[in-house]
Amino acid sequence: MNEDISKKLNYIFNNPQLLKSALTHRSRGGEHNERLEFLGDAVVNFVIAEVLYHQFPKATEGELSRWRATLVNRDALAELAKEFDLGPHLLLGPGELRSGGQERQSILSCAMEAIIGAVFLDAGFDVVRDRIEAWYENQLKSLSSAASHKDPKTLLQEYLQSQRQSLPLYVVESIEGEAHQQTFLVSCQVEGLEEKSFGRGTSRRRAEQDAAQAMLGVLKQ
Amino acid sequence: MNEDISKKLNYIFNNPQLLKSALTHRSRGGEHNERLEFLGDAVVNFVIAEVLYHQFPKATEGELSRWRATLVNRDALAELAKEFDLGPHLLLGPGELRSGGQERQSILSCAMEAIIGAVFLDAGFDVVRDRIEAWYENQLKSLSSAASHKDPKTLLQEYLQSQRQSLPLYVVESIEGEAHQQTFLVSCQVEGLEEKSFGRGTSRRRAEQDAAQAMLGVLKQ
Repeated sequence: MNEDISKKLNYIFNNPQLLKSALTHRSRGGEHNERLEFLGDAVVNFVIAEVLYHQFPKATEGELSRWRATLVNRDALAELAKEFDLGPHLLLGPGELRSGGQERQSILSCAMEAIIGAVFLDAGFDVVRDRIEAWYENQLKSLSSAASHKDPKTLLQEYLQSQRQSLPLYVVESIEGEAHQQTFLVSCQVEGLEEKSFGRGTSRRRAEQDAAQAMLGVLKQ
Repeated sequence: MNEDISKKLNYIFNNPQLLKSALTHRSRGGEHNERLEFLGDAVVNFVIAEVLYHQFPKATEGELSRWRATLVNRDALAELAKEFDLGPHLLLGPGELRSGGQERQSILSCAMEAIIGAVFLDAGFDVVRDRIEAWYENQLKSLSSAASHKDPKTLLQEYLQSQRQSLPLYVVESIEGEAHQQTFLVSCQVEGLEEKSFGRGTSRRRAEQDAAQAMLGVLKQ
């Protein structure tokens, strides 16, 4: 059993007893994983906080807190536990076993935190930080792209600059409707391309974003 | 200003700008301390969790969580901030300054967490752990003695063993009252002392504890 888990965690315990304790739910009696869970919870909260702090130097405290909460909440930790297939290896009391405890989110997330605490005790802070960063690699990447989500005008401008082309030209082609219910039609043109793109919106800015989005579509073809 | 604080923290910043940021409340504008607070909160929660985990190997997860909460809550951190006299050095906006922000618990605790985050960035994990343990030394000591609070029978037994005397003798002298409302009278006698002590209680065990408490009083004279 330990070999399966070690392979998935990409970590081999020096002291296999720590892994066993981490997998032992309190319903089983004896040495169980609640103290390790306490420790692991503190470790993972700190490691993720540190990673986010450095990865997003312009994020506010509110953003950092929110992102951390999504990464280390019960469901996220239970997902990790499932990825490592901890469920079948959990040591549960007979009641929990019968009632499907191996698949319960709270039991899985608790075991995942306990594993983190156990790796920390087994190998020290640098090793557990390294493991956590690896386990969270995909989640951190997708957070990164979501957090850096830029508007179409910015993306178009960055694309053109990377091609050493001049900035796009936005022209208001028409404004329709009453004063406070106007629709703007804007064209966008870039260097070296005959074809214009067009955008509509309730403000000039929105129409420009729409036109930039359309131009990005043209350029990507 | 930095010298005062460095002396009290027993830490000199390599990068004094970090200390300045840690002392700057968001009301002041510019580079303020909220991101450092986010980081410092995670650091102190982890360090205190680790210290408690090792210091109390028999404590339950519930006890560890409760003790940590008392050590790192807003008021505890504000107390540390007052000990280091951070208040007068805080950089606040004019509104906060006028309304006594320098003494507000939330602003003080936030600055204290930011200082912890700043020390971590300035010198790394081992140094900040060392500082936190030093700052919390007295609180950890008093927690230790409170947590190891033993009952009178245990204390009496330990005292007698330390004096190489035999165990105390407890005798039920009388039981009064109806079956489910009994009062036990128990005497306690120790080697080399004529005088007995007496205790009363609704169970034999409680009466023995009471008698042991009385005997400890006699022995301490």
